[in-house]
Amino acid sequence: MNSAPQGSKPSTRLGAPLTRRRFLHMTGATLGSAGMLNLLNAWGQNAMDGLTEPPKLDGNGEGTKVIVIGAGPGGCPAAYELMKLGYDVTILEARDRVGGHVWTIRGGTTGEEYGKGEQTCDWPEGFWWDAGPSRVPFYHNGFFHYCRELNVPLIDHKNLNLNGWVYAEGIDGNLDSTKMRLHELQADMAGYSSQYLANALDQNALDEELTEEDLEHWKSYLINWGILEADDLSYKPTDHRGYAVLPDVYSPGKVNDPYPLADLLPFADSMMQAAGGYLAATAVFDWQTTMVKPKGGMDQLYEVGFKAAFGERLKLNSPVTRINQDDAGVTVTYTNKETGEDEEIVGDYVMCNIPLSALLKVSVNFSDSMQTAIRSVPYAMALRMGIGFKRRFWEEDDWIYGGQSFTNISQLGILGYPDDDYLSANGGAMLGMYNFGTNAAFVSSLPYEDRAQLALTLGSKVHPQMRDEYISAFSVAWHLEPYSLGAWPSFTSESREQVMPILQEPDGRIYLVGEHLSHVNAWMEGAVQAAWMQVEKLHTRVMQG
Amino acid sequence: MNSAPQGSKPSTRLGAPLTRRRFLHMTGATLGSAGMLNLLNAWGQNAMDGLTEPPKLDGNGEGTKVIVIGAGPGGCPAAYELMKLGYDVTILEARDRVGGHVWTIRGGTTGEEYGKGEQTCDWPEGFWWDAGPSRVPFYHNGFFHYCRELNVPLIDHKNLNLNGWVYAEGIDGNLDSTKMRLHELQADMAGYSSQYLANALDQNALDEELTEEDLEHWKSYLINWGILEADDLSYKPTDHRGYAVLPDVYSPGKVNDPYPLADLLPFADSMMQAAGGYLAATAVFDWQTTMVKPKGGMDQLYEVGFKAAFGERLKLNSPVTRINQDDAGVTVTYTNKETGEDEEIVGDYVMCNIPLSALLKVSVNFSDSMQTAIRSVPYAMALRMGIGFKRRFWEEDDWIYGGQSFTNISQLGILGYPDDDYLSANGGAMLGMYNFGTNAAFVSSLPYEDRAQLALTLGSKVHPQMRDEYISAFSVAWHLEPYSLGAWPSFTSESREQVMPILQEPDGRIYLVGEHLSHVNAWMEGAVQAAWMQVEKLHTRVMQG
Repeated sequence: MNSAPQGSKPSTRLGAPLTRRRFLHMTGATLGSAGMLNLLNAWGQNAMDGLTEPPKLDGNGEGTKVIVIGAGPGGCPAAYELMKLGYDVTILEARDRVGGHVWTIRGGTTGEEYGKGEQTCDWPEGFWWDAGPSRVPFYHNGFFHYCRELNVPLIDHKNLNLNGWVYAEGIDGNLDSTKMRLHELQADMAGYSSQYLANALDQNALDEELTEEDLEHWKSYLINWGILEADDLSYKPTDHRGYAVLPDVYSPGKVNDPYPLADLLPFADSMMQAAGGYLAATAVFDWQTTMVKPKGGMDQLYEVGFKAAFGERLKLNSPVTRINQDDAGVTVTYTNKETGEDEEIVGDYVMCNIPLSALLKVSVNFSDSMQTAIRSVPYAMALRMGIGFKRRFWEEDDWIYGGQSFTNISQLGILGYPDDDYLSANGGAMLGMYNFGTNAAFVSSLPYEDRAQLALTLGSKVHPQMRDEYISAFSVAWHLEPYSLGAWPSFTSESREQVMPILQEPDGRIYLVGEHLSHVNAWMEGAVQAAWMQVEKLHTRVMQG
Repeated sequence: MNSAPQGSKPSTRLGAPLTRRRFLHMTGATLGSAGMLNLLNAWGQNAMDGLTEPPKLDGNGEGTKVIVIGAGPGGCPAAYELMKLGYDVTILEARDRVGGHVWTIRGGTTGEEYGKGEQTCDWPEGFWWDAGPSRVPFYHNGFFHYCRELNVPLIDHKNLNLNGWVYAEGIDGNLDSTKMRLHELQADMAGYSSQYLANALDQNALDEELTEEDLEHWKSYLINWGILEADDLSYKPTDHRGYAVLPDVYSPGKVNDPYPLADLLPFADSMMQAAGGYLAATAVFDWQTTMVKPKGGMDQLYEVGFKAAFGERLKLNSPVTRINQDDAGVTVTYTNKETGEDEEIVGDYVMCNIPLSALLKVSVNFSDSMQTAIRSVPYAMALRMGIGFKRRFWEEDDWIYGGQSFTNISQLGILGYPDDDYLSANGGAMLGMYNFGTNAAFVSSLPYEDRAQLALTLGSKVHPQMRDEYISAFSVAWHLEPYSLGAWPSFTSESREQVMPILQEPDGRIYLVGEHLSHVNAWMEGAVQAAWMQVEKLHTRVMQG
């Protein structure tokens, strides 16, 4: 991306011209990545490219009525772009809020999972925590596009805080049930690994064909990255790694004594095994530090930005029960939750942002192939819990300002700290539990408060202050959430290949929209891109009239 | 820090009791770090500890007049604590602002270096950039203490953004004068190094005494961290590292094809040599990700927080020319810049926050040993430049949200992006040049605008958009700044050992204060700690009558 932004126009399956992007796709499929890189270099472009703007479309949709079902991360951009194109848009949303899976919890938020009764969040003013998506990678340009357009301020989301804790139990060796800083683990693993490799290079023990110069460069890297002694290539405690007593105005013994350095972690411990994963997790392409999010909660884009733009077009508390299409149009039946009565609305097309898991509960006269495709995608179970605390002990006691701590306790998962309002004297809310699959199934079977007690018991292994500072928790088992019934689609390579082409195409007058249509699965960005694709398809069709 | 904060009372050289902290210092000096760690573990404490609060002192200083000279990072906390203890405090500041070395540049800021004439910043509303300290490590608790007490909101300062660029020129190999993402470099160096080491372990080629289990754990770490193929331990392109074409709703060829992956960087290139340093720089104890800073500029703590607390006690534009002490008191002569007249003020004690480099220009009747100590500390040269741009090309084109890019161009150094106001349509100001020593000497010899043109020429190698988007620059050569005359003291181990005990002790009625008294050199935290130490010493003396 050396050049100014110029909105790579997305291609379409409906007779779109051969764009540069589409050409690259095709070339990539033929040449493989090596040929691709050369091509890209030849074109003077950075290799990273992607959809950055909505399609620029000609013509006006005036007189055509589109019913958008679901005001989630796919329905919102779809409705917004259709409005801009002049369509007559109505948005039906089952919940009492906009955002769908995007759900920011605050004092006063209420929820009711299947079979669990109601819960109400009673956190103090100023606390917020995202039960759904909570972070945005640097290349999710569709998301950035709408934050820019709708004036949603962003802050940093920190996946990586090297001062966060790592805690593992049930492991071999001396580090069992011990907590340590991620920084210590990273420094020591880099140090030990670099030390051994540098020595092997020094003795030419690798039996590889490397020039003398290559070996020297590599050794230099290892010395720099592992912080080795240059003379004997050994890894020892250094002030890079840290201190047993922090430097200050005072000094131990005489003035010039170095401050006592912290001991290294014991080398041959199985903590190493997990360490690579924890460290890699914050370096993976999608999760690499740093990420961003809207200030005040992910819902700011939806509940503030999109909602204001929709105005009267948006009908909240209107769960759809039936969609019936025929040659003349499409009739959508929904329940008006205020009156309890069923109501009908008729339009020319439907853009449906209901997750496939929940769409199964709606009566729709889809084609057989679409019905089969929808049924064939299982959804993942996941449970996330926000916990409000009276005091920011993670800041005051542990000096952790945002970011995460990692554990190997599968029912607990990671802990996530608020990335703003540092030093607040009023406490704050943190991610206190995040689990998946069978762990989510088990924990979600518990009553709300029992889940919270479990999180406190497990979390106290990392933060013993938790019980003393506890206010209350709010947990969301996404597979038990009405209108969600799952966290995200669990495609296999096979199921994706089989169903994606069907899901992406309109079924009569009905267009699906959502991240489940995209290769950027389980991200808001996938839903934005799917919306742009489907809007372009629908508009092309209408204009060809 | 597992326990609640309990304000480690700082020890003092004036007959303080043996605190836990002081005991640890003494023990550390005796036992070395291994014994220290055991002791700390035995006490159930995390190894990290440090000064977190001002000393809790009894008695009232009413009737004793202290003149604080210099409202910098040392003078401000000293004056503030003395005020709280009841002293009659007057603060003389040479500049027209509070903060000293802490200097946030905005539209309207003026400066005048020795021999360079005046410069005025003409950036638009909302731009800000720190010419001095710009980031705070997690353990600088004195700084956090005052931000808490004076209600200064903090944001993240990002040293590490893996999407930042790395650019090096004049190096061997294929990567000369090429820019790449830090993420790519990190992934590839981790991958290649892990691959070679894992294979060596696999073949037991290291000839080390490791158990079979150790080898397996280590291999697992390398597979996880380097993202190796588990079966043959090879490092290949992966979606962890990145794509040649980003995933979206479209797909190359058939739906299930993986997106084209980005090529690896060529292995045997000297870029590796530098890479270790760039990567380690953001992992070093003091600079580890993530760090923080006040929202809106570092000066918010000083120009807003402390300044309001000082009220009428603060006299700006009052450079001190002479300090004369005798048995009866101390007389300070300063120039009233508004009238141009010299004025005098008499007090019982002086707390002097003037950097040693500038203190040489003040006439003071110090003892010979103090005079010698002050003269023996050379100060470093450093030049920093903020550049205002009309458009945030680093965000819009390069998808870089805060953090830094690294170059090996020694006149240019690092580039630093604004860590807030992402997506602003009004552009922003970034760190566009940061150099030291002889490079700073050379660049500072140029007129302001020539410096800026040099920065644009060099910076355009990383961001070719620079010249098109340029508004104006503001550069600060700290060694040419009146009242600073240097960036920070360049202690050697020997000079520190020699002069620190002299600098830390009062010279008659004069107490020095500033980071030059601390082992946390060149950090605001060192100045805070020195202030706390000197306030305790002075107060103990006054109370003992």
